[in-house]
Amino acid sequence: MSTVDKQLDELQATIVDELPNDISVSDVTYEGPELVIYTRDPKKFARNGDLIRNLAGQLRKRITVRPVPDALTDPTTAREQVMNVIPEKADVSDLDFHADTGEVVIEAAKPGMVIGRHGSTLREITQEVGWTPEVVRTPPIESSTVSNVRSFLKQEREERRDILERVGRQIHREEMADDEWVRISTLGCCREVGRASFILSTPETRILIDCGDKPGSDDAPYLQVPEANPLNSLDAVVLTHAHLDHSALIPLLFKYGYDGPIYTTEPTRDLMGLLQLDYLDVAAKEGRSPPYDSAMVREAVKHAIPIEYGDVTDIAPDVKLTLHNAGHILGSSVAHFHIGDGFYNVAFSGDIHYDDTRLFNGAVNDFPRVETLVMESTYGGRNDYQTDQADSEENLIEVINETHDQGGKILIPAFAVGRSQEIMLVLEEAMRTGKIPEMPVHLDGMIWEATAIHTTYPEYLRDDLRDRIFHDDENPFLAPQFNHIDEGDDEREEVAAGDPAIILSTSGMVTGGPIMSWLDHLGADTDTTMVFVGYQAQGTLGRRIQNGWDEIPRNGRGRSDTLNLDFDVETVDGFSGHADRQGLENFVKTMNPRPEKVLCVHGDESSVQDLSSALYHNYNMRTFAPKNLETFRFK
Amino acid sequence: MSTVDKQLDELQATIVDELPNDISVSDVTYEGPELVIYTRDPKKFARNGDLIRNLAGQLRKRITVRPVPDALTDPTTAREQVMNVIPEKADVSDLDFHADTGEVVIEAAKPGMVIGRHGSTLREITQEVGWTPEVVRTPPIESSTVSNVRSFLKQEREERRDILERVGRQIHREEMADDEWVRISTLGCCREVGRASFILSTPETRILIDCGDKPGSDDAPYLQVPEANPLNSLDAVVLTHAHLDHSALIPLLFKYGYDGPIYTTEPTRDLMGLLQLDYLDVAAKEGRSPPYDSAMVREAVKHAIPIEYGDVTDIAPDVKLTLHNAGHILGSSVAHFHIGDGFYNVAFSGDIHYDDTRLFNGAVNDFPRVETLVMESTYGGRNDYQTDQADSEENLIEVINETHDQGGKILIPAFAVGRSQEIMLVLEEAMRTGKIPEMPVHLDGMIWEATAIHTTYPEYLRDDLRDRIFHDDENPFLAPQFNHIDEGDDEREEVAAGDPAIILSTSGMVTGGPIMSWLDHLGADTDTTMVFVGYQAQGTLGRRIQNGWDEIPRNGRGRSDTLNLDFDVETVDGFSGHADRQGLENFVKTMNPRPEKVLCVHGDESSVQDLSSALYHNYNMRTFAPKNLETFRFK
Ligand SMILES: [Zn+2]
Ligand SMILES: [Zn+2]
Ligand SMILES: [Zn+2]
Ligand SMILES: [Zn+2]
Ligand SMILES: [Zn+2]
Repeated sequence: MSTVDKQLDELQATIVDELPNDISVSDVTYEGPELVIYTRDPKKFARNGDLIRNLAGQLRKRITVRPVPDALTDPTTAREQVMNVIPEKADVSDLDFHADTGEVVIEAAKPGMVIGRHGSTLREITQEVGWTPEVVRTPPIESSTVSNVRSFLKQEREERRDILERVGRQIHREEMADDEWVRISTLGCCREVGRASFILSTPETRILIDCGDKPGSDDAPYLQVPEANPLNSLDAVVLTHAHLDHSALIPLLFKYGYDGPIYTTEPTRDLMGLLQLDYLDVAAKEGRSPPYDSAMVREAVKHAIPIEYGDVTDIAPDVKLTLHNAGHILGSSVAHFHIGDGFYNVAFSGDIHYDDTRLFNGAVNDFPRVETLVMESTYGGRNDYQTDQADSEENLIEVINETHDQGGKILIPAFAVGRSQEIMLVLEEAMRTGKIPEMPVHLDGMIWEATAIHTTYPEYLRDDLRDRIFHDDENPFLAPQFNHIDEGDDEREEVAAGDPAIILSTSGMVTGGPIMSWLDHLGADTDTTMVFVGYQAQGTLGRRIQNGWDEIPRNGRGRSDTLNLDFDVETVDGFSGHADRQGLENFVKTMNPRPEKVLCVHGDESSVQDLSSALYHNYNMRTFAPKNLETFRFK
Repeated sequence: MSTVDKQLDELQATIVDELPNDISVSDVTYEGPELVIYTRDPKKFARNGDLIRNLAGQLRKRITVRPVPDALTDPTTAREQVMNVIPEKADVSDLDFHADTGEVVIEAAKPGMVIGRHGSTLREITQEVGWTPEVVRTPPIESSTVSNVRSFLKQEREERRDILERVGRQIHREEMADDEWVRISTLGCCREVGRASFILSTPETRILIDCGDKPGSDDAPYLQVPEANPLNSLDAVVLTHAHLDHSALIPLLFKYGYDGPIYTTEPTRDLMGLLQLDYLDVAAKEGRSPPYDSAMVREAVKHAIPIEYGDVTDIAPDVKLTLHNAGHILGSSVAHFHIGDGFYNVAFSGDIHYDDTRLFNGAVNDFPRVETLVMESTYGGRNDYQTDQADSEENLIEVINETHDQGGKILIPAFAVGRSQEIMLVLEEAMRTGKIPEMPVHLDGMIWEATAIHTTYPEYLRDDLRDRIFHDDENPFLAPQFNHIDEGDDEREEVAAGDPAIILSTSGMVTGGPIMSWLDHLGADTDTTMVFVGYQAQGTLGRRIQNGWDEIPRNGRGRSDTLNLDFDVETVDGFSGHADRQGLENFVKTMNPRPEKVLCVHGDESSVQDLSSALYHNYNMRTFAPKNLETFRFK
């Protein structure tokens, strides 16, 4: 008998002891980080809401209760009964019964009404039918990503259970090492922005944090070094957020033999799938052969284990992971690792925005303990101070008003995820409060889809925004002026020929995508203004236009000519998803207690050096600006 | 056809082109780092001494020429002919014909006379009989280690050829990496003395430098970390010297699957075997179960590829190794690695003595280039200045004279390897020049055997000492006052009861071995003086005696009592095998060019910190005091 089986037997005995006599326990298993209790008496469990909570506290495990199949009301009857319990206003769009686990997945426009006060409606459902309800939100805006992921996971349910059981047994394996230490190895993202990839290791466990690409370069993380190999012996991958410089090469891990879990938030899982497929798409369009295919993206999604902000999750015998809001994009996280029994704590900031934005609360930096912080430094340079967002919004509004007055269009290249939604919120409010005239806001490229994903996970948005989205009539993303460009170039031509309007289009650095068509349609229009609201990297067309280039060589469709840009070009700073130098310092300064050591990464050479030396001099911490391929030992 | 075979075919074609038409080339193979040319015309090769040198220069490879079997005179005839060519004074003790390689191994008391001026006698031998002569020295003092190693290697000749061929093909494999970098990982020996073990890695290659134990502790190098695994994928092991804190766990590598070469000097190979077997012995006597058995020591010896000081040797497609005299013990080396084609250079000091001693020339620090130096720091502390050896010798002589005058014995605990021979040279000279009276010098424990190994390899000793050993009548180690205690306790009792004498006995820190018997016999003798000439580590009996303990609890032979020490105790510093703080600084200071970076290792925490900060402040280099389990990236 394996030690895990022995452990489960002992747990079962303890649980039986703790539960009232009339509640049976048929089996106890691990599913990923959770302990699952199978019972013939799901209804009795549901009657006493404290039972599970008490068990969880006592066993220090996350607990799920599942009915055994013959304790279940048959689905047809159950469907009726469930619908009777749920208030009609919850607006249920789908009910899905899974006999293998006794779960019923309820998709509803108003999940809160399915849950009830403190979960009362959920418990009522189980008391009625025995099934365990799981609630998901009907996306207020239809999202093909969300619906594809959901139907894919439904189809892969069985393999997913196998994966979760395997992962669960790995997590709860017996600790073998008699040594204790903590190390971080840098596989990328040092003295550069891109190819984020780190290994956190102990004698027992190895965890990969992020695995991204490097924009504008073919450089991948150093996955071939011994520290990462064999890949299938890694215990876990943790993904801080969906941006490609953190997620692009996660599917490659599966191609190279990794078969373990990806811990991340639910919205990050969906956004990751969207961005990775787009990454393959772009590569194909540019005639490059991508390092993996879409089957590997599906593997990544299948192996994702979503965890919520603040939940402490066992991910290895000696490591607990907690994700916290990073304020950067939807689902973005600061990843906190608690190692051993109070032995050491490490936090990886991922990318952060320290102050609140319209979309997100500011990054969380409130941890009981962090000895070492691995810190992004994108704007860590000595002069990297950003305009205050309120001022930026004023500037944007002024540019829009001027352009509108002269009858032109406002063309804004924007990243699909994050900055587009921030700008949408600015525009919606400005129109609602009359600061700019009502006019159509056209959303082109992946922006609409990314927005739909945002509205699917309002819990991950800033609290007041979340509350507004819960009420359809106040959901700013549903405002009537937003139009999805979904009829291609005909629609664009029509918009270009029409009345003043605002256009948000990808790609954010004018390196491809529908923005190229908009240049064709509006480039010669002297009434139009192109407004840059995000960072334009060296070597991109966006950067060139920003710098005053007005003759763009064009190739394609058999012709090779020049496009003259006659529109105005403006730059409005201050909408960054990244903390500026002040924000980065504040993030560290306000930590309590402050970390002993900070590794400054995710910034160009001078940014990491500047931030590292500033943190050292101002806060007297040991700071480092690592190189790629180094290993630091702590304790 | 493999790329190595293709490469060999091309080499063969080039060689055929370059050689005169009448010299045939039957085959070309790799044997370890050497290129071996098989020919039916060994005599013609021998006639033109420049042929091989020119080929080696042109191909940039070390070249050996071997006759094919049917080009050889039969051994019986050949034996006579060879003996006719070699001058009788060479004093040949053995001739050994190996038909498989066409080599004849000639063991002689005077190898120089077998070689002849610039190798003329060797060439003459080949011209006569076709066989390739290889010359080894008859140990002037019989050494069971040397004779065991030689007969073992003879017996394993065939497997050794297989190993060498495999290693040769590995070394000359095609380079696969398109990246270039250099890293050093620390598996031990950081902020501590002991368990020396480092990995030097490039995208192509991984090399382990040293693999020792930690005296007074069970801590082994961190061989289990991914950087070192799988062990059988390491390209090479390089051993700087035979001391156990560098060599003890080399056999363990073979137990764990390593099957590659150990590059080291020939005397280090022999001393390593001696010390490792003693390590097993001591463990057995102390009732500990050692981590490997003697079969693994034989594996290590079998896989040793001896290289000489100064020879540049390919050990991987992108790494050339050169060993240089380190002045520390017999065969000890500074290991210099040239990586890529001028890409980077790293030197590992091993343990060094910077100034000349009686036994050795001072450590070599004259390299064309070294960007990073990994530096021992045993005496790197701010106060670690040693007495000048001349003064130490005066002190020792004074103690000896005083003790002799009062009719007592001088009892010197000493390490078998290195310090004993240094003291023997001091005593021999002092007696020869009348500074101390003639009296017997008894050598107990492994000292005699270690001395025999020293006299087998005079090329590795200080030049004037080497020249004296070449003449039996001047070989100081053959002086008649030296007596090998080889009859056990009876002999010791006799010595203890007799006239004044000097006794050198292991162990050097009084932790076991025959010195314990000497305490029994002489501890109560108030006329005797115990003289410490080496470092006594914390926790050893030697340290306690040095500090004034005079009641030693004894266990064993069924009794448990107390031994009173009534003899005098003196300490004479200055005979260390390690450079002191000044020597370490001088080693670095006089390098030209100086390294950019220095990693200070092999010293306790304060020593490495002191040395690191001194080198930084005095010479403006980047210096580090690494921890174990860290990885540093260069370039
Ligand atoms: Zn990001
Ligand atoms: Zn990023
Ligand atoms: Zn799988
Ligand atoms: Zn040593
Ligand atoms: Zn040493």
